Amino acid sequence: MGKNMTKYCFGIDLGGTTIQLGLFDEHGKCILKNELPTRKELQGKFILDDIATQIEAMLLETKLSKDEIIGVGIGVPGPVVKEAVVLNCVNIGWGTFDVAAELSHKCGLKVKVANDANVAALGELWCGSAKDYNDAVMITLGTGVGGGIIKDGRIVEGADAAAGEIGHMPIVYGMKERCTCGNRGCLEQVASATGIVKLAKEYLENSDVMSALRGISNLSAKDIFDKAKENDKLACSIVKEVLEYLATAMANISCVINPQIFVIGGGMSKAGDYLIDILQKYYEDKAFLPAKTTKIVLAKLGSEAGMYGAARLVMTV
Amino acid sequence: MGKNMTKYCFGIDLGGTTIQLGLFDEHGKCILKNELPTRKELQGKFILDDIATQIEAMLLETKLSKDEIIGVGIGVPGPVVKEAVVLNCVNIGWGTFDVAAELSHKCGLKVKVANDANVAALGELWCGSAKDYNDAVMITLGTGVGGGIIKDGRIVEGADAAAGEIGHMPIVYGMKERCTCGNRGCLEQVASATGIVKLAKEYLENSDVMSALRGISNLSAKDIFDKAKENDKLACSIVKEVLEYLATAMANISCVINPQIFVIGGGMSKAGDYLIDILQKYYEDKAFLPAKTTKIVLAKLGSEAGMYGAARLVMTV
Repeated sequence: MGKNMTKYCFGIDLGGTTIQLGLFDEHGKCILKNELPTRKELQGKFILDDIATQIEAMLLETKLSKDEIIGVGIGVPGPVVKEAVVLNCVNIGWGTFDVAAELSHKCGLKVKVANDANVAALGELWCGSAKDYNDAVMITLGTGVGGGIIKDGRIVEGADAAAGEIGHMPIVYGMKERCTCGNRGCLEQVASATGIVKLAKEYLENSDVMSALRGISNLSAKDIFDKAKENDKLACSIVKEVLEYLATAMANISCVINPQIFVIGGGMSKAGDYLIDILQKYYEDKAFLPAKTTKIVLAKLGSEAGMYGAARLVMTV
Repeated sequence: MGKNMTKYCFGIDLGGTTIQLGLFDEHGKCILKNELPTRKELQGKFILDDIATQIEAMLLETKLSKDEIIGVGIGVPGPVVKEAVVLNCVNIGWGTFDVAAELSHKCGLKVKVANDANVAALGELWCGSAKDYNDAVMITLGTGVGGGIIKDGRIVEGADAAAGEIGHMPIVYGMKERCTCGNRGCLEQVASATGIVKLAKEYLENSDVMSALRGISNLSAKDIFDKAKENDKLACSIVKEVLEYLATAMANISCVINPQIFVIGGGMSKAGDYLIDILQKYYEDKAFLPAKTTKIVLAKLGSEAGMYGAARLVMTV
């Protein structure tokens, strides 16, 4: 084999319902993609076997040999230390174990593991909207609020695998209700899709201002943003409150690691430039002077960010 | 010269009134120490010459040759990028320039530059209370609130040299007065020596609770902590409010980079274990579950931390 042989790697995003598997070249081009259901039965004991089998199938399909594969990166829905050991993945039934060692044993390839929000951030850095940057923070506004911190092109895990847990920054003061984590006033309690709907219901109960939101059953985050875009006063107030909290968290993040760029992803980010514009205004107001100009952009890779970032994990020296 | 020749380096802390210069061996032992006044006249144009002259004198005194010196590390009171370029040092009259190149030219040694709060953190990591750790956050509670973030044994500078600017985290909501930075509600506005005194004066004005603080002219941060230790009710309330804000900032920091240890330094930290105990309690309450056990300790090196950390700068590969 020649010295300049192209190398490939697998990027896998293990979700609560689906496993996304991608085969990538060194430049971030996805040459083959597949999906599997996540088998959660028996504490998820079949998951790694399913992945190993699928890897063999994808190698067969592409006629690639294991010599041409640098390794397998995998993003998992739980805390990870040392790019190897999962501390627990409640969603899929896993306890603490060395996923890297076990999957490597099953598939005969080098394996690196990281948290799903963290690999998403790395994916956006490699091939998405933070391309050409080294230091980025990604914030995922979904059912919860996730985050990933990239410093010098690498994921920051933290001493207890809690780095980038932006959703649990204590940002909202005086909140009575507890977050799923047990604390009170976490960013996630207002800035997630669940949180904003809860906040909207409070607004609706505690005011008699007319609002198009009152007519909507099964209110969603999307409804709130849609009505705000139509200038519904109450919807605007809710959106502003949420984005002001988010901007406060971002201003805090800047005083800690001062990234080059913030990437906003997740379902709620579909509100698009409307969201970014308001967020930017609040961020500029709250950020420390030298960091007021930090870029804030929308994520590009959507639900594939994790797969890309997982691949990048093994590409990184 | 033998391969195992001991190597040395200079660690310099450039302050607004004094320059501290230390000559260190590789193990962090300070073999010679000196102080110079900081000549601020003519936009501080003599400062680097004074330092270069002093370096030569210290080499002469120790009979060391430049071959035995790895380099010169210097901490400066302003933002620094790329371990070289100072963006501005208002205190000593400097604008933006490449301190590393200029001092290196003057003294014929390799030079690395960093912000003073950052080198203090690095010093505590090398030889102080964060020894044996790789990821630490130091918070300096002085006239202002400074901070330094160490990740994998290295200073985090940030994209705009604003990483570790913990004093400017937007932590206090609803504050009317502006911080020196122009924003409102910065941690520094309550958790600095200046801030706590201001807060105490507000408490005293807005209540008629008996307090030993009322009898004190020229109230200082030390007075407030001393009276709190004696169970003065008002002083206790002030200390608690300040430390609750500080703990909130620390809980936020943990959700971003999740360090192994927090080191608390600066004049106010002389309140000692009393301060740490209260801070720990609030931190445990506010921190995200996996990070609740992060160590919080007092700094050890006092005003020499910067000199140690500056030396470490050039020891680091």
